[in-house]
Amino acid sequence: MSAFDALVEALRRLPGVGPKSAARIAFHLLQHDREGAHVLAQALERAVAAVRHCRRCNTFTEQEVCATCLDPERDRTQLCVVETPADQAAVERTGSYRGLYFVLMGRLSPLDGIGPRDIGLERLYARATDGEVSEVIIATNFTAEGEATAHVLAEALKARGLTVTRLARGVPIGSELEYVDLGTIAHALVDRR
Amino acid sequence: MSAFDALVEALRRLPGVGPKSAARIAFHLLQHDREGAHVLAQALERAVAAVRHCRRCNTFTEQEVCATCLDPERDRTQLCVVETPADQAAVERTGSYRGLYFVLMGRLSPLDGIGPRDIGLERLYARATDGEVSEVIIATNFTAEGEATAHVLAEALKARGLTVTRLARGVPIGSELEYVDLGTIAHALVDRR
Ligand SMILES: [Zn+2]
Ligand SMILES: [Zn+2]
Repeated sequence: MSAFDALVEALRRLPGVGPKSAARIAFHLLQHDREGAHVLAQALERAVAAVRHCRRCNTFTEQEVCATCLDPERDRTQLCVVETPADQAAVERTGSYRGLYFVLMGRLSPLDGIGPRDIGLERLYARATDGEVSEVIIATNFTAEGEATAHVLAEALKARGLTVTRLARGVPIGSELEYVDLGTIAHALVDRR
Repeated sequence: MSAFDALVEALRRLPGVGPKSAARIAFHLLQHDREGAHVLAQALERAVAAVRHCRRCNTFTEQEVCATCLDPERDRTQLCVVETPADQAAVERTGSYRGLYFVLMGRLSPLDGIGPRDIGLERLYARATDGEVSEVIIATNFTAEGEATAHVLAEALKARGLTVTRLARGVPIGSELEYVDLGTIAHALVDRR
């Protein structure tokens, strides 16, 4: 296979990149940004070699334990469970949470054959029962799979004597009711406080 | 910068990849497809090192002259001018053209500061006046920039005594060749004027 075709094929493995955009990206890199292609190649190799999982919270890190887990200012009695590092970053950006995290790096998805073992739930259960954690805040996504994951986690963690809470469902701040979907409004009514 | 953040930043340089999809791609590669990340890094470095431009038609190749230009079966009196290798591939897929090509690797775009020198029009003029070419078929895209490029090329090539034709307007106006169905391109080749 030609070097160009091999590059297009490698780009097609990326999520969300179809054959046309793979060809477009390859053309752009070789015609207009060979420096960018080299930088990307280096970044890929560096990340593959250096990035591993935090022994405590499971997020990506280059150390044994990540900076968040090592931060002495964080409240060690609260553990927030999220699906991905991007979700963790979203919670961090609120500035209103000072506890620790556990990053599932996925969600339960029986249809895709992703079960409890695939996303390492045993490691979460071990982490949550370290004796310091008293409350687990489940912040998986409010999708069908995220909700199913939240349900399984809640049952297992309550059985281990932990207080389990879930982010409140409701109407997003700044939105107008007539543009909010019915399910969200219905949940917000049930969860009114 | 962390290896993960550096990877996200390198991915953001790719055309059509915003911050969210860069983060999504980086997560996917490190969590689910480290082999794919390594394959992509190798493909990038190989392409940057090996891919250059055909001395005759200007397309990407790893040789001095590409296989199409060396093919003794092709009609050397016809030269089809396209913007990109993807456009050339679209014309090839019709199976109704047996001449040679010149690949501009771009188009004139005064608003973006892309002039005749940037897309090497002098090389096209030298190629078209080699004594063998009698007809130049202009197959730039039917966009504003592609049409402007076609106009400039037609004037310059006619002034050099060449017969210049343009793909017929069977190709929908405003569309890019690589997204047009084969039958339309085939008809447009037959109806070229
Ligand atoms: Zn950690
Ligand atoms: Zn060639």
